[in-house]
Amino acid sequence: MGRVVVDVMPKPEILDPQGKAVASALPRLGFTGFTGVRQGRRFELTVDGPVTDEVLATVREAAVTLLSNPVIEDVVRVAEVAEAAEPLDEGTPA
Amino acid sequence: MGRVVVDVMPKPEILDPQGKAVASALPRLGFTGFTGVRQGRRFELTVDGPVTDEVLATVREAAVTLLSNPVIEDVVRVAEVAEAAEPLDEGTPA
Repeated sequence: MGRVVVDVMPKPEILDPQGKAVASALPRLGFTGFTGVRQGRRFELTVDGPVTDEVLATVREAAVTLLSNPVIEDVVRVAEVAEAAEPLDEGTPA
Repeated sequence: MGRVVVDVMPKPEILDPQGKAVASALPRLGFTGFTGVRQGRRFELTVDGPVTDEVLATVREAAVTLLSNPVIEDVVRVAEVAEAAEPLDEGTPA
């Protein structure tokens, strides 16, 4: 089973209200030194069998057609990944 | 100016309605061979100055505290990136 990641971000010139909201919340929570935040979307697609060039081309096309809105968003990454993303650390506070 | 990317994905055991909606739309649009889709969020944070270990630790903490909901989501990546994500290709159909 292969796995492809697609990253979609708002175009730089587009207003990003979600990113702005996070950027203004950071200092309130004590996280200082950040000059900006942009928020996009990340997709993990699993495919039958290996990720061939043909599969990547199909994913690229699906990314522009279905996974993103080309008017306000850019597809910034389409890449095979070895396995499903793992949580960074298990120590989530109880 | 430094730049850090944070990727947040739904926990595997959590129902992902958005991912399911995309997964069912793919074959309808002629994109076959996909066994599943998961949809998460991608953040790009810009910082004053270089990305030090201290900055990465702050971003990791902000990722768990503010950027994700630890009950239903995992932070799967916190990494410095060289520059802002660029669109994959300029040839967006007119």
